[in-house]
Amino acid sequence: MEIKVVRKVLGVNDTVAAENRRLFEEKNVFVLNLMSSPGSGKTTLLERTLERIAPEIRTAIIVGDICTSRDADRLARTGVPVVQVNTDAFGGDCHLGAHVIREALAEVDLDAIDLLVVENVGNLVCPAEFKLGEHARVVVLSVTEGEDKPLKYPLMFRVCDAAILNKVDLLPHLDYDPDAAERYIRDVNAEMPVFRLSARTGEGMDGWLDWLRRARKP
Amino acid sequence: MEIKVVRKVLGVNDTVAAENRRLFEEKNVFVLNLMSSPGSGKTTLLERTLERIAPEIRTAIIVGDICTSRDADRLARTGVPVVQVNTDAFGGDCHLGAHVIREALAEVDLDAIDLLVVENVGNLVCPAEFKLGEHARVVVLSVTEGEDKPLKYPLMFRVCDAAILNKVDLLPHLDYDPDAAERYIRDVNAEMPVFRLSARTGEGMDGWLDWLRRARKP
Repeated sequence: MEIKVVRKVLGVNDTVAAENRRLFEEKNVFVLNLMSSPGSGKTTLLERTLERIAPEIRTAIIVGDICTSRDADRLARTGVPVVQVNTDAFGGDCHLGAHVIREALAEVDLDAIDLLVVENVGNLVCPAEFKLGEHARVVVLSVTEGEDKPLKYPLMFRVCDAAILNKVDLLPHLDYDPDAAERYIRDVNAEMPVFRLSARTGEGMDGWLDWLRRARKP
Repeated sequence: MEIKVVRKVLGVNDTVAAENRRLFEEKNVFVLNLMSSPGSGKTTLLERTLERIAPEIRTAIIVGDICTSRDADRLARTGVPVVQVNTDAFGGDCHLGAHVIREALAEVDLDAIDLLVVENVGNLVCPAEFKLGEHARVVVLSVTEGEDKPLKYPLMFRVCDAAILNKVDLLPHLDYDPDAAERYIRDVNAEMPVFRLSARTGEGMDGWLDWLRRARKP
């Protein structure tokens, strides 16, 4: 019975996600859902990404957190429109749902942008189950997290279209094998592009930005 | 209505947690629920902890993961009894529930141990909501994660009895202020003991082990 309830919640979510998607198509806005565990560096990655793609690609961001507007405050300094969603207004959810995105869209001028990035709540589990109407999903891992995360959180790696291995500037100080991490990612999702980069130093950003530019123009 | 369903699930969980707790009291076993985001180093911390407290404190471990037995395999090498729970058998849950612990207890000889450690699924959100019948909860943070996690995931820091700031050996290579992290923890939970340590190098383990020994003898 509990499982039935969960299925119903997911069914409702999918319906709203499909409505969001139709709106995005109509407005010709490419939507990216960025997911990761807490502290893998999504916000820093977005700061560096915005520096490189603006004003070429007009971007807005929806940031999901349970509480606080810290990430939104950081991103607002880039000059890009940012909407903060706090899921504690929606029961403290551990993920963003399609209905939350629909409400946040009231604050976004879709006619004025080409790209909408959703920075999801930091969590490798639940966000993978909830479609938002996005065109692409990207998972960010940090090289400080251990190589085996793709095996332990396979759904996240199955539903994503690209993976970023962030904080490679720390590799000399870690017992971490990025080749093993990449192998584990491919065990779960054989075709997954993997970008090794450091959002802090800017190393390796080009591959990721090329992918983003290409993904936006199908 | 969705919220009502969640409340009902939590109510059932609390009932089973209370039953687990009665069993732990009866058997005189101290139970610790260890939580964190993915990759903060729970398993390495447990390996180092077991090296230091065995055979003085007879310990068993229940390890929760969505998939794989990688953490259990690592911990089994310490010679301590380990039970792996894969939540994909319970709908791929993002946390351990009290009923899952009850089932896992069938594999644990409570008469032969003093301490049971539950290594929860790596997730800073959902595990905070589900009591297991434990006596104490500990959250592990990594200094690679950003100082503001306590503000962004306050429930986790509110329900826990101690916090561990792991991987301090990496501090020289990071833009991370451990004093700020500690202040944010205390903003959420004023009395929280915080242990700065490196499970990799062993630095700072003494404070944590002292706390664990004292917590076990109320």
